[in-house]
Amino acid sequence: MSSEKFDTVDIIRTKRDRGTLTPEQIDWTIDAYTRGAIADEQMAALNMAILLNGMNREEISRWTAAMIASGERMDFSALGKPTSDKHSTGGVGDKITLPLAPLVAVFGVAVPQLSGRGLGHTGGTLDKLEAIPGWRADLSNAEMMAQLAEVGAVICAAGAGLAPADKKLYALRDVTGTVEAIPLIASSIMSKKIAEGTGSLVLDVKVGSGAFMKNEDDARELARTMVTLGKDAGVNTVALLTNMATPLGLTAGNAIEVQESVEVLAGGGPSDVVDLTVALAREMLTAAGRPDADPEAALKDGRAMDVWRRMISAQGGDPDAQLPVARESETILAPADGVLTELDALAVGVAAWRLGAGRARKEDAVQAGAGVRLHAKPGDTVTAGSPLMTLLTDTPEKFERAREALADAVTVSPRPVGTAPLIIDRIS
Amino acid sequence: MSSEKFDTVDIIRTKRDRGTLTPEQIDWTIDAYTRGAIADEQMAALNMAILLNGMNREEISRWTAAMIASGERMDFSALGKPTSDKHSTGGVGDKITLPLAPLVAVFGVAVPQLSGRGLGHTGGTLDKLEAIPGWRADLSNAEMMAQLAEVGAVICAAGAGLAPADKKLYALRDVTGTVEAIPLIASSIMSKKIAEGTGSLVLDVKVGSGAFMKNEDDARELARTMVTLGKDAGVNTVALLTNMATPLGLTAGNAIEVQESVEVLAGGGPSDVVDLTVALAREMLTAAGRPDADPEAALKDGRAMDVWRRMISAQGGDPDAQLPVARESETILAPADGVLTELDALAVGVAAWRLGAGRARKEDAVQAGAGVRLHAKPGDTVTAGSPLMTLLTDTPEKFERAREALADAVTVSPRPVGTAPLIIDRIS
Repeated sequence: MSSEKFDTVDIIRTKRDRGTLTPEQIDWTIDAYTRGAIADEQMAALNMAILLNGMNREEISRWTAAMIASGERMDFSALGKPTSDKHSTGGVGDKITLPLAPLVAVFGVAVPQLSGRGLGHTGGTLDKLEAIPGWRADLSNAEMMAQLAEVGAVICAAGAGLAPADKKLYALRDVTGTVEAIPLIASSIMSKKIAEGTGSLVLDVKVGSGAFMKNEDDARELARTMVTLGKDAGVNTVALLTNMATPLGLTAGNAIEVQESVEVLAGGGPSDVVDLTVALAREMLTAAGRPDADPEAALKDGRAMDVWRRMISAQGGDPDAQLPVARESETILAPADGVLTELDALAVGVAAWRLGAGRARKEDAVQAGAGVRLHAKPGDTVTAGSPLMTLLTDTPEKFERAREALADAVTVSPRPVGTAPLIIDRIS
Repeated sequence: MSSEKFDTVDIIRTKRDRGTLTPEQIDWTIDAYTRGAIADEQMAALNMAILLNGMNREEISRWTAAMIASGERMDFSALGKPTSDKHSTGGVGDKITLPLAPLVAVFGVAVPQLSGRGLGHTGGTLDKLEAIPGWRADLSNAEMMAQLAEVGAVICAAGAGLAPADKKLYALRDVTGTVEAIPLIASSIMSKKIAEGTGSLVLDVKVGSGAFMKNEDDARELARTMVTLGKDAGVNTVALLTNMATPLGLTAGNAIEVQESVEVLAGGGPSDVVDLTVALAREMLTAAGRPDADPEAALKDGRAMDVWRRMISAQGGDPDAQLPVARESETILAPADGVLTELDALAVGVAAWRLGAGRARKEDAVQAGAGVRLHAKPGDTVTAGSPLMTLLTDTPEKFERAREALADAVTVSPRPVGTAPLIIDRIS
């Protein structure tokens, strides 16, 4: 007989038959999977049962706690100032973290922003920042603490010690069609954020073609689940539901998104990027006990830019360096006179990915200069033959498949149609 | 890019989202899994999605065909006589194959009975026959054909070449809680039977505590699915739904079940074993074009016993040899005066298994003499303190856990209650 406390097949059957797992079963499952006593094929079957049959609030909360317990926890209390973090569920052109982290730090709130790399059509914050010559993503915990104390903001890679169960589980979900389970998405995100030790957290849950959640009901359920998990763990958590039907800003790529972020930090930049940056900054500052801070002013008067420059320098980057530029470009023209009423986020994201801005496998490298630069956004008037967007890559053989991705991305109409608001809802 | 025709995650997602797999997707899935291009964890997730979301008739039929195509097919047409086979979904004390195969062969119908070993509480036909000194289960295809031509009946192990995809898939389902999916059960059984090349097939689908299917609705659905698969493949197929609430006959084990089978072949034996053997023989003979055969007579007049003796001898067994006897025994007594109204099949099966008649892992050996001998069956009058059953094993430390399994197995009531019929329904 095995000396294990539970039988894996019993646990799979319980969830398969719509039962509820006990706290002890959940603790054992995460621990046993982490140490290899549950095989990948068993966890895959359990994940599919969870995806199709769900988990209740207590199960999700325990599952998250067990993943946190699988690794180390960070503690920022020695900083002597409030901490706040932001998490986005991922979208196209979503460079908001870049201006947001220094902007919030202006007001004495520490921002420990652990970020990831891109996989598939959504970009990765670390990939974008790595376009800056010299900048490095990997910091030790001591380096991270020192930078938070001195600069107030850090954007870096999560260490391997944080929620290792989640890392193993995420890799499995990725190849077994079980990524899209709301309990598993929520516990994956929140286990890392809670283990990271932030005092408050603002979630940017995206909805639309370019987002993970294509419809508002699913996004709302994910947001509610994560807000509940955060509050249960003592993290002051709020979520904004935001629109991802069209890309954010006028760029989707790496270096070109850094450039656009710097424009925002210089007091300019596209209005949607500025509006979302300010809205998220207000939420983070309020959650961290600074409701009277004025982030708009800090963008206009150069204080946010000052923190940005110190943040990039602290991680070895040169904030004044020339950013890489793609070697080749092609322009896509407007098909007709009229109003651009649709510019599909997913299509633009896939095109940028195929141009080299993203990766198909974890071990692939990305091109710093590749991506898509937009010349018009939904609501703009266009003329037949005028430039709609520019495709950028170092490897021109990639243009063809990028153009294929964009085949149905654009709608030009005789007159304007109503556009959805950028911020759909707030869930707290 | 991969050179594979389909993406595994797309296929998993299709079934997860209640879609229908195309014939090409199914063919590719079975082929890719067999050659290792689909990983175990991916197949486990797909199996769980199939278990929870089902497959339609076309999908099940194609899935079965793809499993058949993964290996060799046998062909008995050179025999110049009709062939018929029986498959039981497994029960406690189910020794019916032993008298049935020679009984049907009496009438010139060849019976190519490919059988399995026991796993868990249901016994295996090959384990039972291996209690006969000298008898061997492994025959080459040529030996099997020769025996069918000369003796008319063979009970042997399925060769590794038949539906290898099913072998790999069954081992995976066993550890991932996905055994109980009706489309997967049906395609597993029928792929082997169709590949085996039998002309007609009778299915004994068992219902009740000692069966795989605990309720009649599930058993009926499984029976209908298998009959449809058989007919679609040109195999004349019929199913009986039979009762497995209590063990068949008075023995559950290996040597003791061979002994009881020989009693039936000698014209005696418990009435339920005789009745089910005759009913299944009539179905097989009718399906094979011998509707006027009289199997009852062939049990009484020794013709079935004659084929049995030749069948055992042909595979190296001595039909006159002394069968192994367990070294130790303990008796369980009736708890009260009254009528035995319940004797739970699952409990008896688990007790026999724990006594050494079955195995927990594929590589374990079984004890030929171990098992449970019953002294009363439901409907019999018992007296407090009279023997109800005898537990048999070579290893007396096993008695305790066998007794535990039987703790709630027996109900003695003041008066008789109605008992369910042995044959519940016929599905064709």
